[in-house]
Amino acid sequence: MSAIKRVAVLGSGSWGTAFAKVLADAGTPEVTVWARRPELAAAIRERRVNPEYLPSTPLPRAVTATADAAEALDGADLVVLAVPSQTLRQNLAAWAGLIGPDATLASLMKGIELGTLKRMSEVIVEVAGVEPERVTVVTGPNLAPEIAAEQVAGTVVAGRDIRRAELVQRAISTRYLRPYTNDDVVGCELGGAVKNVIALAYGMAAALGFGDNTRATLITRGLAETARLGAAFGANPMTFAGLAGLGDLIATCSSPLSRNRTFGERLGRGETLEQAQAATRQTAEGVKSCLSIRDLARSVGVEMPITEQVELVCHEGLDPLKATTALMARETKPERPGMPSTGQ
Amino acid sequence: MSAIKRVAVLGSGSWGTAFAKVLADAGTPEVTVWARRPELAAAIRERRVNPEYLPSTPLPRAVTATADAAEALDGADLVVLAVPSQTLRQNLAAWAGLIGPDATLASLMKGIELGTLKRMSEVIVEVAGVEPERVTVVTGPNLAPEIAAEQVAGTVVAGRDIRRAELVQRAISTRYLRPYTNDDVVGCELGGAVKNVIALAYGMAAALGFGDNTRATLITRGLAETARLGAAFGANPMTFAGLAGLGDLIATCSSPLSRNRTFGERLGRGETLEQAQAATRQTAEGVKSCLSIRDLARSVGVEMPITEQVELVCHEGLDPLKATTALMARETKPERPGMPSTGQ
Repeated sequence: MSAIKRVAVLGSGSWGTAFAKVLADAGTPEVTVWARRPELAAAIRERRVNPEYLPSTPLPRAVTATADAAEALDGADLVVLAVPSQTLRQNLAAWAGLIGPDATLASLMKGIELGTLKRMSEVIVEVAGVEPERVTVVTGPNLAPEIAAEQVAGTVVAGRDIRRAELVQRAISTRYLRPYTNDDVVGCELGGAVKNVIALAYGMAAALGFGDNTRATLITRGLAETARLGAAFGANPMTFAGLAGLGDLIATCSSPLSRNRTFGERLGRGETLEQAQAATRQTAEGVKSCLSIRDLARSVGVEMPITEQVELVCHEGLDPLKATTALMARETKPERPGMPSTGQ
Repeated sequence: MSAIKRVAVLGSGSWGTAFAKVLADAGTPEVTVWARRPELAAAIRERRVNPEYLPSTPLPRAVTATADAAEALDGADLVVLAVPSQTLRQNLAAWAGLIGPDATLASLMKGIELGTLKRMSEVIVEVAGVEPERVTVVTGPNLAPEIAAEQVAGTVVAGRDIRRAELVQRAISTRYLRPYTNDDVVGCELGGAVKNVIALAYGMAAALGFGDNTRATLITRGLAETARLGAAFGANPMTFAGLAGLGDLIATCSSPLSRNRTFGERLGRGETLEQAQAATRQTAEGVKSCLSIRDLARSVGVEMPITEQVELVCHEGLDPLKATTALMARETKPERPGMPSTGQ
């Protein structure tokens, strides 16, 4: 399989834009970012900066932009999907016929589709009508502003076809981003999706004044419930101990740059969902995903107490202090982290 | 086995003192803290506060103190060891004959003995001449000042004899501390010891300005090398995903209350080991442990790159920036976190 020459990055948010820079910095000759709004595409193309999402990051010369998806996808041997999770199906339906017959696809999205309860790669396979082997997933502790600032980080490229995963690995390997391959697509996607929900809980606990012991316990129990969900779907338990599980979870919970954590903080300070949404002009991914992840867990009989409490706070008006206290006051018993049969 | 009635807490540092409070808050009738210096014992006994290590925490009425170990140990059915790791052997040699024939022992210590490369419970068994079944280990995300402030946290009581572990569990179960039992003594002790070394690396990276992606990667890789070491000694891999592994590691790395993290920050800011020791008037546990853990790893052929780099910074004068950069720039490859055969 020959090296990637032309990439379409569909989505011009902070991660899509930073990822385009990574591709270019790694030597990809042509990287075209698709933006929904023509004025944003023009700004990226003409000023070599994304004024809305990464205003202080100069983009390499290999990066251009368009609002025409057909133009972005023309001849692309790698198609990067970086739109909001819940808009993927609708967007991709319009793009499916434009994707080349042997192009590799890479998902940067972290969510579970509401209603269908599908992972993003499953939506891609279904809507684009491609073989599962053509789809890869890139995930890890990758806060976009830090990657854009060339802060050193690791990431994971997961794929059922290891050659395609390695192709993407080579296309994004730079001095500041070290990609590792993994064949566990399910585990990597579930890790990425659930961590947004745990980060909401973490943000609430932080705003409520809980200390580092409590927060570390939340992360630990959050990883355990993620691993339980993963086990029910055949994921490799070790994925959750790696960059796509633990690494991403810690980065998202720890960082003031994380939208989910800061959204959780607003809820913890007593803002309603509506107030927090109005103040941030967007909904954090975990606010929607907590519903689909809860339903996914219930569909296989897995207990996810943190996800359940976050859903109650976000959508049923439960007091965040009561939710956090309830989580920490569970009965004493033997600890079996990550084991699917326990309900810790 | 009847409930614990009388406890000797041998050691009057912040964790020993906070643990005495936990025992008393959980309903233990008599808790005697042993302090090496008579004036500190007198202050704890008479003023009901540890003026040196926990000056703002009032101690319950059930807590008293003495500088006479025989007095503390007289009739104690639980003996808690909370002295600095590298002093355990010498201290315990003097106390061995004073420990009751069926008393349960609990180690709060996190380190590996220099020279012998023994875990603390191994030193206890050897020096006190007790059966391994009598020894328990208490470990987890338990920053002493937060426990003293009754911040909610979980902890782990590990023991080869589950009845003794449950005895200790009941003796420390309070509204703010939730103990879980675990039969993996080896994993719990290695998790507690290695996390101090990783926290030094984390502190260096933080002081050097590395972002949350890098720090999350350090924690993830740190946990992986801990798990590799554990696997070589028969530990349960799942222990490292729990409170005694991940939980303790995150709390220690995240907290400004952690001595190891803050010591690492000093090294990261360019202080020499001697300067950092002089400024803090003590040596962080990880500074010594990195030597014994490195030797332990080499003895079984396990790669621990973070531990190796920390040792080089602490004891060979390696520049912390070079050490951190070297850690993050390892070659790309498949990710196999926690697997003993890889050297990531």
